[in-house]
Amino acid sequence: SAAFRSSEHQHIRYNPLQDEWVLVSAHRMKRPWQGQVEPPLLKTVPRHDPLNPLCPGATRANGEVNPHYDGTFLFDNDFPALQPDAPDPGPSDHPLFRAEAARGVCKVMCFHPWSDVTLPLMSVPEIRAVVDSWASVTEELGAQYPWVQIFENKGAMMGCSNPHPHCQVWASSFLPDTAQREERSQKSYYSQHGEPLLIEYSHQELLRKERLVLTSEHWLVLVPFWAVWPFQTLLLPRRHVRRLPELTTAERDDLASIMKKLLTKYDNLFETSFPYSMGWHGAPTGSEAGANWDHWQLHAHYYPPLLRSATVRKFMVGYEMLAQAQRDLTPEQVRPHFLCHLKGS
Amino acid sequence: SAAFRSSEHQHIRYNPLQDEWVLVSAHRMKRPWQGQVEPPLLKTVPRHDPLNPLCPGATRANGEVNPHYDGTFLFDNDFPALQPDAPDPGPSDHPLFRAEAARGVCKVMCFHPWSDVTLPLMSVPEIRAVVDSWASVTEELGAQYPWVQIFENKGAMMGCSNPHPHCQVWASSFLPDTAQREERSQKSYYSQHGEPLLIEYSHQELLRKERLVLTSEHWLVLVPFWAVWPFQTLLLPRRHVRRLPELTTAERDDLASIMKKLLTKYDNLFETSFPYSMGWHGAPTGSEAGANWDHWQLHAHYYPPLLRSATVRKFMVGYEMLAQAQRDLTPEQVRPHFLCHLKGS
Ligand SMILES: O=P(O)(O)O[C@H]1O[C@H](CO)[C@@H](O)[C@H](O)[C@H]1O
Ligand SMILES: O=P(O)(O)O[C@H]1O[C@H](CO)[C@@H](O)[C@H](O)[C@H]1O
Repeated sequence: SAAFRSSEHQHIRYNPLQDEWVLVSAHRMKRPWQGQVEPPLLKTVPRHDPLNPLCPGATRANGEVNPHYDGTFLFDNDFPALQPDAPDPGPSDHPLFRAEAARGVCKVMCFHPWSDVTLPLMSVPEIRAVVDSWASVTEELGAQYPWVQIFENKGAMMGCSNPHPHCQVWASSFLPDTAQREERSQKSYYSQHGEPLLIEYSHQELLRKERLVLTSEHWLVLVPFWAVWPFQTLLLPRRHVRRLPELTTAERDDLASIMKKLLTKYDNLFETSFPYSMGWHGAPTGSEAGANWDHWQLHAHYYPPLLRSATVRKFMVGYEMLAQAQRDLTPEQVRPHFLCHLKGS
Repeated sequence: SAAFRSSEHQHIRYNPLQDEWVLVSAHRMKRPWQGQVEPPLLKTVPRHDPLNPLCPGATRANGEVNPHYDGTFLFDNDFPALQPDAPDPGPSDHPLFRAEAARGVCKVMCFHPWSDVTLPLMSVPEIRAVVDSWASVTEELGAQYPWVQIFENKGAMMGCSNPHPHCQVWASSFLPDTAQREERSQKSYYSQHGEPLLIEYSHQELLRKERLVLTSEHWLVLVPFWAVWPFQTLLLPRRHVRRLPELTTAERDDLASIMKKLLTKYDNLFETSFPYSMGWHGAPTGSEAGANWDHWQLHAHYYPPLLRSATVRKFMVGYEMLAQAQRDLTPEQVRPHFLCHLKGS
């Protein structure tokens, strides 16, 4: 029988961070696409819209008026999924009907006073201000809550309902599902190998060079071996860092600059403002923050939906929802797409 | 502090079948929606299109000509994600880079010769023929493969690239992720309680009556306590049945009729051809089919994306991708929507 070639022969790969498998069927890119095409981008977003509740000086749903901010701006989400004072559902009466208390806060962080920019269009010092705001909101909410989830939904395709550049921060009294999985995996890897999973993983990717997208003095960006979304990436510090607030000045500067590079590459890939959901994962916080979290390594996941062009996305449906994630090209095949010439650079 | 009310106070619920949590924040339905609106349905699908590769008499991508079928029609997917003969990737050289062999087949099953019908528009005998085809393809592919995943992606929103009524069948040499989780959960529940998880669960839902959508002599449909999608349902036989081929004649007749009722309810909910992904889960097959799978109960999951109307969907993005599934209304709040008058009945 033929020798195995990952770009031709389907196989499954294991995600040791989240304890999940993905089916990799690279030959499937050959099939024609006759399905849904996404609506093209609304071209013109006004720089300032007094009716947009994220703009400086605008009035929000709760009647509050935004300050005339000129950097980042953090405020409470007017329709929070988590509130600080929800009562406890009490004990469950049956093991198949388990409910537990959930408390928390949801905040919105504007990245910039202008609605017509995105992170890659912002200057490195402006992105650096976002990094600082991420670190301080983690510190602020992490004082009380064990998990502070920073995430950005970019683009209408990713359910983003406001074009103004912003992210969200949901802090919770519980460790969310994915956090629990990453905690379990990193802890067990550390106890078996005496080293953090993602430190060893970064080390291997630097040696293998098959999936690296960007490297800088302090950071790495790569398409993980177990990526599910076509152009998914993982952004990691080179040093062992457990949480955003621990980043040094030099690491923050460098993060702003590598983020600008990565997001510009994304935008150039299909010549569109690239949609994605991204978010940060770091060691748990709250009252247990002082425990030993040496098995944790800070990282950001980028999950972009596009597959073939600015309007043809990967659908995670049917088989993916009922059975297992599936991808149509290998992570190694993705890398060259990122290495093309950067326009305007 | 206030007494707990699930429709007002956010909380988390546990999915004991798939070992996952969901954040339930019912008060969030109050927020206005300014995000992406789905394109309206393409109104007219021709009953017969000789260029549509799923139609009777049409020529497919591989040059084969479809028979002039008049019931269901099963054929090999021309762009299969799983092929029977892929070579083995061989042993992994590092625990963080694990790949394994994946072999299988992908089939497409047309439900009906006409492109302009959907399951709820078909007659009960026609749907009954689909049930029989599901049972026999499970038997046929299950002789060789440990997992036979039947799934239907309905609607462009769910990545369905062909309007002709059809489903897919992907059989694999491995137990996919979700199958593994359901196997683990059902096995451990059985060993602790001496009874299949889903049998006890059905029993409880029949007693509690808070989430039941439809009941018939042999079947139940309910919104699971741990539902993630707004109008998600679970379809279960009342009897302990491990796999589709075990269904009796009476159970098959009744399944066809309850499916027609459920899918008509879905279509009436927002007066649209309701999009969803659905699929069947039953005990593993293949060479281990003869082992003890008494902990398994056959069931179908329906995962529909719509939230507020025919054009406003729930986006599972940001927080959901990075942290945990989140829903905007409780499963109990969904039930009355299903119980409204059935148009034309
Ligand atoms: O096979 P189809 O219908 O072309 O494709 C659809 O279903 C598949 C199985 O869920 C998915 O992998 C694809 O992303 C989706 O577009
Ligand atoms: O809060 P937003 O931006 O209105 O809403 C968006 O992000 C949330 C968090 O990922 C999701 O729950 C919503 O489905 C999505 O539309």
